[in-house]
Amino acid sequence: MASNLIRFNAFQMNAAGHQSPGLWAHPRDRSHHYREAAHWVELAQLLERGLFDSVFLADVLGVYDVYRGSLDASLRHATQVPLNDPLALVPLMAQATTHLGFGVTCALTYEHPYPFARRMSTLDHLTGGRVGWNIVTGYLDSAARNLGLDRQLAHDDRYDLADEYMEVVYKLWEQSWDDDAVRLDKAGRVFTDPAKVHAIAHHGPHFQVPGIHLCEPSPQRTPVLYQAGTSSRGKAFAARHAECVFMSGPSQTVIARQVDSLRSALAEAGRPPGSLRIFTQALVITGESEAQAQDKLADYQRYIDIDASLTLLSGWTGVDFSRYPLDATIEYMDTEAGRSALASFSAADPSRRWTMREAAEFVGLGGRGPVLVGSPTQVADQLEDWIDRTGIDGFNLTYALSHETMEDVVRWVVPELQRRGRYRTAYTPGSLRHKLFAQGDRLPAEHAGRQVKLGTTTS
Amino acid sequence: MASNLIRFNAFQMNAAGHQSPGLWAHPRDRSHHYREAAHWVELAQLLERGLFDSVFLADVLGVYDVYRGSLDASLRHATQVPLNDPLALVPLMAQATTHLGFGVTCALTYEHPYPFARRMSTLDHLTGGRVGWNIVTGYLDSAARNLGLDRQLAHDDRYDLADEYMEVVYKLWEQSWDDDAVRLDKAGRVFTDPAKVHAIAHHGPHFQVPGIHLCEPSPQRTPVLYQAGTSSRGKAFAARHAECVFMSGPSQTVIARQVDSLRSALAEAGRPPGSLRIFTQALVITGESEAQAQDKLADYQRYIDIDASLTLLSGWTGVDFSRYPLDATIEYMDTEAGRSALASFSAADPSRRWTMREAAEFVGLGGRGPVLVGSPTQVADQLEDWIDRTGIDGFNLTYALSHETMEDVVRWVVPELQRRGRYRTAYTPGSLRHKLFAQGDRLPAEHAGRQVKLGTTTS
Repeated sequence: MASNLIRFNAFQMNAAGHQSPGLWAHPRDRSHHYREAAHWVELAQLLERGLFDSVFLADVLGVYDVYRGSLDASLRHATQVPLNDPLALVPLMAQATTHLGFGVTCALTYEHPYPFARRMSTLDHLTGGRVGWNIVTGYLDSAARNLGLDRQLAHDDRYDLADEYMEVVYKLWEQSWDDDAVRLDKAGRVFTDPAKVHAIAHHGPHFQVPGIHLCEPSPQRTPVLYQAGTSSRGKAFAARHAECVFMSGPSQTVIARQVDSLRSALAEAGRPPGSLRIFTQALVITGESEAQAQDKLADYQRYIDIDASLTLLSGWTGVDFSRYPLDATIEYMDTEAGRSALASFSAADPSRRWTMREAAEFVGLGGRGPVLVGSPTQVADQLEDWIDRTGIDGFNLTYALSHETMEDVVRWVVPELQRRGRYRTAYTPGSLRHKLFAQGDRLPAEHAGRQVKLGTTTS
Repeated sequence: MASNLIRFNAFQMNAAGHQSPGLWAHPRDRSHHYREAAHWVELAQLLERGLFDSVFLADVLGVYDVYRGSLDASLRHATQVPLNDPLALVPLMAQATTHLGFGVTCALTYEHPYPFARRMSTLDHLTGGRVGWNIVTGYLDSAARNLGLDRQLAHDDRYDLADEYMEVVYKLWEQSWDDDAVRLDKAGRVFTDPAKVHAIAHHGPHFQVPGIHLCEPSPQRTPVLYQAGTSSRGKAFAARHAECVFMSGPSQTVIARQVDSLRSALAEAGRPPGSLRIFTQALVITGESEAQAQDKLADYQRYIDIDASLTLLSGWTGVDFSRYPLDATIEYMDTEAGRSALASFSAADPSRRWTMREAAEFVGLGGRGPVLVGSPTQVADQLEDWIDRTGIDGFNLTYALSHETMEDVVRWVVPELQRRGRYRTAYTPGSLRHKLFAQGDRLPAEHAGRQVKLGTTTS
């Protein structure tokens, strides 16, 4: 696939609502059906008809309880609670599709790498090599507390632990079983050649894993690695490990800067420019005509819920925004985190002084990404413009309504982009990694995951 | 369902082989297809045609490395290695069926109860209330070592930890969300009523879980609880918690004794006799006629592998049986564990002095349970005899060949038992628990899981 093609992922969560807090209440929204298998099968088949790369499943293992120091608003507005486990959706959606990939968020501070490595290998086997892992180091204190910790690890400590975690899972996935270890020789009664299976003998400051991986090699071995960190430590981690990076920001300027910075970090880490795909979050609102799209926008906007938006925004930033009046601007913020939160919106439109209400309205429809509204040609123009001006490879498309938004994208936008020669017209056969990079199923030879050596421990 | 009906579970593992070590090498065995989704979908649909209660997925998170002090024999004979995660099979098989239940083994020493509770709630939602959990406290040192421990906890300590673990998950599943907490009131914009969701405030010696469960109530809330412990501490645990118990033993005498003992413990724990279903492991070998069944038996026996059997037997008992000659009898055993292992086989046929080779041959076909061979009527006679003489409710049917053994059971044995009025002719609608006990989806009011109180900690 040529690099000027535009790629789509669907940004989802095993919950109601997700990135448009409040819109679960729209009469046509069906996101509250998240508990039912049919809801996900329908989505997966829709996305495969639209030739999406993958469905990306966000996750947190905690609740948004910063706003008003309580989780009441979270519960009332279903801002990512109730929230089910994303992993269970993968075999379900894989069974109903042939090509669609799956990017699943798993926080590595919450499960030991030894059982986790087996979970991912199992999914890679069952999906025929269509699994990706969004590496998250955990960001909600509420999650840490329920795991018996007072609070989560400090930011940089999390990344140190993450580096060792990656080393353990790479050893298990890439080094423990030789390619030809499984002989399946029925006549000779040899299933596996023991000489070709190796104990990883990992001994590090956080993890002791002496044994072998329990699974035989899966199609991709290491799942496709996704990451979303944009801090400097997070960027270094992504430059070393990530094959796909998700960003979210309100403007092309913000995203272009992040893309440049990440691609420089990639080069410094010795990885070729083509070894990373970058996606940015966006919401598409479209229909047969511009007027229809604008009507939809106006309709959706009536369901934006300021209280719900501030619940999310408070959780993301750690700032309790209930402490400020809705017309507060950046000058009213008495903490650095509060100023920084409002400043990030100014980047979307520096010509106005953003109030808290305006920020909340922005978040209320499509989260922290742009909203691209218009006829199919107008939306396609905007998508092309984003790709061409920021250096991203594609979009992590969120929804206003489930599944209406994705249905509109598949029905209106995909064919328009195909007419322009900027969207695939058929899937490439093969694994998710091969679909993304056209270089086979395995991590490339220069990737950190291929450099680990059994028995040695970097730390 | 009347209690004199016979119930079937299928005993499986996300691996090749399982309870007939060596038979993966039979030309017709397909168990090495365990990595493929289609293998499990086919099995699930077959079992549902046969009106099985459930498929029971065994699991270990370690390898059998006691025999010869190495895992070479395990790898060569695929004795439960390679081994994939069982949980991923549940949404897959559920999607292909309507009634079949799923009993999944998860060792509670390997994952924190907070994320684990969410995994199970998610599966209960996605399957529409068809999930069971086989509670295992972990029994392989090799697993513990890979989780960073020197060895697993001592046996009784594991059960103390297990009791607190159960308390945490009961609080999350049964108490955190009121039945009417989710309002889904789109007009009023209230998804969940915050007053009806409760932090569990659990503070115990092993676990600190202050928060709420992340999932809204699933059809069964607590999954159907399976257990397999037969030690005295294990039996007390089962009497308190288990709704289904799996046993395995070579003779009716052994099983009848275990059943009596467990039913007494149940009464002592204040639970009614009908609140527990007991299943014993068995292998059925059948065909159109007795001669055909005997031919199959002879054919299968040629693939029994003594080395593979001793690998399993050594792992189960902790005794390295490579230290003894194959014709060693109980008198040759220089450890209590070795004597106890051979003594358990004598119970199958006290008239002969069992050698190690004979024990290994017994284990090599159907594991530690009986092998019931014959025409459909002969097998039905034996099944009825087992039920009537031991007080069990049904069988945990293992396979010689995958899926041939289950196909034979569904084709020949199920219709014969139905003719005799001893097998269901249609599924009862409803959850797995309702199918088992015909008293609704929830744990009964007197069960320990319904007795927990938020904020209080027993221990």
